[in-house]
Amino acid sequence: MSNPSQSNLSHINSQGEAQMVDVSQKTPTHRQAIAAGQIRMSQATFAAIQVGNTPKGDVLGTAKLAGIMAAKQTANLIPLCHPLPLQKIEVNLIPDENLPGYQIRATVITKAETGVEMEALTAVSVAALTLYDMAKALEKSMQIENIRLLSKTGGKSGDYFA
Amino acid sequence: MSNPSQSNLSHINSQGEAQMVDVSQKTPTHRQAIAAGQIRMSQATFAAIQVGNTPKGDVLGTAKLAGIMAAKQTANLIPLCHPLPLQKIEVNLIPDENLPGYQIRATVITKAETGVEMEALTAVSVAALTLYDMAKALEKSMQIENIRLLSKTGGKSGDYFA
Amino acid sequence: MSNPSQSNLSHINSQGEAQMVDVSQKTPTHRQAIAAGQIRMSQATFAAIQVGNTPKGDVLGTAKLAGIMAAKQTANLIPLCHPLPLQKIEVNLIPDENLPGYQIRATVITKAETGVEMEALTAVSVAALTLYDMAKALEKSMQIENIRLLSKTGGKSGDYFA
Amino acid sequence: MSNPSQSNLSHINSQGEAQMVDVSQKTPTHRQAIAAGQIRMSQATFAAIQVGNTPKGDVLGTAKLAGIMAAKQTANLIPLCHPLPLQKIEVNLIPDENLPGYQIRATVITKAETGVEMEALTAVSVAALTLYDMAKALEKSMQIENIRLLSKTGGKSGDYFA
Amino acid sequence: MSNPSQSNLSHINSQGEAQMVDVSQKTPTHRQAIAAGQIRMSQATFAAIQVGNTPKGDVLGTAKLAGIMAAKQTANLIPLCHPLPLQKIEVNLIPDENLPGYQIRATVITKAETGVEMEALTAVSVAALTLYDMAKALEKSMQIENIRLLSKTGGKSGDYFA
Amino acid sequence: MSNPSQSNLSHINSQGEAQMVDVSQKTPTHRQAIAAGQIRMSQATFAAIQVGNTPKGDVLGTAKLAGIMAAKQTANLIPLCHPLPLQKIEVNLIPDENLPGYQIRATVITKAETGVEMEALTAVSVAALTLYDMAKALEKSMQIENIRLLSKTGGKSGDYFA
Repeated sequence: MSNPSQSNLSHINSQGEAQMVDVSQKTPTHRQAIAAGQIRMSQATFAAIQVGNTPKGDVLGTAKLAGIMAAKQTANLIPLCHPLPLQKIEVNLIPDENLPGYQIRATVITKAETGVEMEALTAVSVAALTLYDMAKALEKSMQIENIRLLSKTGGKSGDYFA
Repeated sequence: MSNPSQSNLSHINSQGEAQMVDVSQKTPTHRQAIAAGQIRMSQATFAAIQVGNTPKGDVLGTAKLAGIMAAKQTANLIPLCHPLPLQKIEVNLIPDENLPGYQIRATVITKAETGVEMEALTAVSVAALTLYDMAKALEKSMQIENIRLLSKTGGKSGDYFA
Repeated sequence: MSNPSQSNLSHINSQGEAQMVDVSQKTPTHRQAIAAGQIRMSQATFAAIQVGNTPKGDVLGTAKLAGIMAAKQTANLIPLCHPLPLQKIEVNLIPDENLPGYQIRATVITKAETGVEMEALTAVSVAALTLYDMAKALEKSMQIENIRLLSKTGGKSGDYFA
Repeated sequence: MSNPSQSNLSHINSQGEAQMVDVSQKTPTHRQAIAAGQIRMSQATFAAIQVGNTPKGDVLGTAKLAGIMAAKQTANLIPLCHPLPLQKIEVNLIPDENLPGYQIRATVITKAETGVEMEALTAVSVAALTLYDMAKALEKSMQIENIRLLSKTGGKSGDYFA
Repeated sequence: MSNPSQSNLSHINSQGEAQMVDVSQKTPTHRQAIAAGQIRMSQATFAAIQVGNTPKGDVLGTAKLAGIMAAKQTANLIPLCHPLPLQKIEVNLIPDENLPGYQIRATVITKAETGVEMEALTAVSVAALTLYDMAKALEKSMQIENIRLLSKTGGKSGDYFA
Repeated sequence: MSNPSQSNLSHINSQGEAQMVDVSQKTPTHRQAIAAGQIRMSQATFAAIQVGNTPKGDVLGTAKLAGIMAAKQTANLIPLCHPLPLQKIEVNLIPDENLPGYQIRATVITKAETGVEMEALTAVSVAALTLYDMAKALEKSMQIENIRLLSKTGGKSGDYFA
């Protein structure tokens, strides 16, 4: 078949559409995922956040908490994610004068049948969105960049390092 | 005081920490926000998604729905966002062979006292995260990029175009 | 094209997939929807519920509250529903000896740009599911039936009566 | 006491009202539940969905995803359900020309101290509600029918097959 | 009837059980509610929080954000509350050396058909619970006290001041 | 440094702000927490609730269910709580003529790496808030009091009894 979009759709149809992966035959193991991203802004906005001169208050603390809480919502946001217990969620926002802006990093740990990459990536994304929200009165042109998985360890399919 | 991080923190403390903006004196108006972002991947992953050869099924349709549903969760994810009625949420994922990957765009409309930038940005972010989830068995190095506000219209503070 | 499932899918693709209806040009009006359904069970289960001899306690009160609370979750459950303020949610479970079982009815009222059919149908469905849960230790073969819209009034598209 | 409704209520009161079952002494085992239901519609609506001629887009794919996501919300919707990890959720909608309409089936798997009947029944119910929502502009008289448990396996209380 | 618990229950039954108030005939007005409460602790715990010597980090900022976010969840937590747009949520925690502990105060504003007392009380309660959570490694005997409505203004039923 | 508020803030900053405790090295054990609280009201309100003469219907049954359901939301409400499976949630409201009002008690059981104190305290708090909501048309001056942990058993750090 020469038309890729048709073969695509037929294929989806023949399999049934979106399906959650069955992890019931997997053994729970300790798993960790680390994700990162950054938010770029003007020098003026960066300076205002660094000195705390922002209209909605504590930008970084709010972004961090929002990231942690969002990791717990991952299975409600990402349709085919499995709901998992989470044993650690850590989110950090590190000022980067050269960007200028902030580097965001999230680490999530579970003991489960499947990994927590999406939890880590969701934590980074929502921390970045919250930073945007907290500072958007200062600058609407901030940009969220390079959200990516840094590492994933502990599952049967082997570890991954970016 | 010469230490910016100390003056920052004192300042936050003296104001009280994070505060929601009071919009009770504003008049509801029709407001629209458009946000965009992209997800970059290998040529092989892009081709697999384009022909529908992905283990979890319909990548683009699932990402789109997840973005729409996430926009409705914005006030639960972003701590200081106001809960708003939403009258339209549109999310599109456009294949970009040159990236390669997908351009993601979200438009949100409300009639309210405050804007829907965060709803549009959240829709883009969660659509991108969901695309990642749907295709991560093929490639873990996909990267979410350039999430930004394209435009915001209808509020008293004036329109914004990126 | 002679294959209906292919034309179906092409059509979806050409339009973009699932889209929320834009209600931003509509005027908020008072709207009401009434939905109904029933749950059928054995005579013995019906008698046990009627005399309150059920292991998890108050079957009907719990089902009613669950239905009311579920109506408020409609926009989170049904992907393309608009989040709406709700001004009244009423759920009733009426014993029906001839079924035997319960007739369930839900009425939802809003003042909004779009109707509350889905809220009323969701309230009936979750009330029925909760009744099942409360009594399933007595009988697993209970069946939820005939969930339908009875009426919808107040929108521009005209009233509907089943 | 001759009045059944009074004895009912006294009974509830003496036990305390609705109570969650204590499963803390049970051992986690692999458990599966399968539920089913159907949605009946006119021949014209059925044909329109089959060829994809529906105003809100992809009816079946959206219904399927909504069912999967709803299964993860079960413990938030059904008051006395235990929150459980879920290892697989599968929802299928099968066209039935003779109905006409769709047969809906959901399978849920967990490893837990209690079963997932309610998760499977909730997935079927919300998939049916979503199908209604996606096609209600075509027909308001669609009816959701025969939501029931087909089987439940893996718990100490014995397997169940409808 | 001499038995109060029976007359109670009959009465409930005759009315139907829990019912949401219908506010569809009311006009939206600006409404404000202020609630307060306090959390009492040992002098040592109070001192540790005041100097920031707490194992989970920023006690007061986290409690404040949790209170704000919880106000937005009120209609999901309190079964018969109406879902409302909220235009301002403010939560403050004021150190009280004499308690010792913290006075917590929340102000919520809406323009709606019904008041926001429950939103303000929920914000206070969850801020207090979060403060407990953040400091419970130091002291498990902290106590949450005197959660109450201070004022309610703007509705047709008249203003209230404690 | 002699200024406690500055040393506080520096300390928070140097550690990073709010952090979830890592429980990934702990072994899951059976854990139970019991919390209590009370709601005080006028004699007239107490009498009205006791005889069921309340405008919104079943006060105590609704409060109980709301408490149970809120326990399941704890990890979404309290920012640094771990999401946990819960194996039992019990909430009781006991009339106390001398208060007058109700004593509220909640017991929560899990098998997990960390305890369920916050789940029990949240159940008590939301049951009390719901009782307030159900009866607030009768009396706005009701007060929620003495929410506290009664006991916590089963963790490595030792049992606690108030």
